[in-house]
Amino acid sequence: LSASAATSLRGRPRERRVDDALRQATRELLAEVGYAALSVEGVAARAGVGKAAVYRRFRSKAELVFASAVHGPDLPPPRDTGTLRGDLAVLAEGILGSLTTPVSAEAVPGLLADLAKQPEIARRFQATFIQHEQVRVETILERARSRGELRESPDPALVHALLLGPLFAWLFLLRRPPARDLGERLADLAARALGPVGPPPPRTGPRTAKKR
Amino acid sequence: LSASAATSLRGRPRERRVDDALRQATRELLAEVGYAALSVEGVAARAGVGKAAVYRRFRSKAELVFASAVHGPDLPPPRDTGTLRGDLAVLAEGILGSLTTPVSAEAVPGLLADLAKQPEIARRFQATFIQHEQVRVETILERARSRGELRESPDPALVHALLLGPLFAWLFLLRRPPARDLGERLADLAARALGPVGPPPPRTGPRTAKKR
Repeated sequence: LSASAATSLRGRPRERRVDDALRQATRELLAEVGYAALSVEGVAARAGVGKAAVYRRFRSKAELVFASAVHGPDLPPPRDTGTLRGDLAVLAEGILGSLTTPVSAEAVPGLLADLAKQPEIARRFQATFIQHEQVRVETILERARSRGELRESPDPALVHALLLGPLFAWLFLLRRPPARDLGERLADLAARALGPVGPPPPRTGPRTAKKR
Repeated sequence: LSASAATSLRGRPRERRVDDALRQATRELLAEVGYAALSVEGVAARAGVGKAAVYRRFRSKAELVFASAVHGPDLPPPRDTGTLRGDLAVLAEGILGSLTTPVSAEAVPGLLADLAKQPEIARRFQATFIQHEQVRVETILERARSRGELRESPDPALVHALLLGPLFAWLFLLRRPPARDLGERLADLAARALGPVGPPPPRTGPRTAKKR
């Protein structure tokens, strides 16, 4: 950008343009050199900005990579499909999609190893990304309760783990190719695990009531 | 070991002694320098054996570390508690135990990142460790079917992911402390997800049948 172009792009549109350039440069470098060899300097150079411009937006390489390869800190509210099972399926499909792009498959294992070594960065990372994912799980559970689909209030962290965990394990621990219906199958299992399935269990009352 | 002691320990007892020394040295070095900085040479030197002695037993650093920090390739058959839920709980507690020692917490994220970069080593790793875990899941599912607890035959890989995944996610993605009853809660959820819970759903047939 020339100095005059930069001036005319000042404010939000320019900010967004820098954001996009940083994410694009990060994805390119992940594909070219991998997570371990990627550096904040390299991304800044590729995007044509200074290192400070990166650190104003992302506190660490881990945050820059996650926001570029998996998802940003702002997530839209989860889609309301009318059922717990449907809502969980949409969420699972979304997680699966975000974990199976070539850049996320490249980034995620290295990123986790990095976070395990840096507790302070890991804490901020949790607050920035993982908490936002969990809020979506809470929204889905609240909807299900208000529909009468859930009798109890499950721990949102446990439900988050119940959906994210098997998808992660399938891809990165068992190292299996993602079946097309994997998200839906896991959402089915999670919905069965959490709620009463099908009609409520038969009670002893009704037949007597009818006779009266 | 002096030369004469080595001679007197030849054969299986000596083999086992070298195995033990290698695993012990690996665990010590994991605690001291971490996964990334640990080397096969360093482990061999600490255990007082040559590098070849390591590679006769473990094809890669990843295998050496997993066998030393998580579990070896030989796993005993899973305990038969009499119920699917009970069997899954014992298995989940075992997985949780093996992932929450200080050395496994140190080793696992780095190990995964390493495997993601080395597909050939990852394939052998799957065959050596992950397949053995899955056989135990299959045993548990077969028992449950023979007890009449399962109407269908679920995919063992999916059930493996359903148990291992949330535990892994809880510890390494959500980075939460392991609650004492976490294994049991997940086994409960998995058993509900997989099998008919409580009495079978009411059918429309029987009442008509009774009237005849």
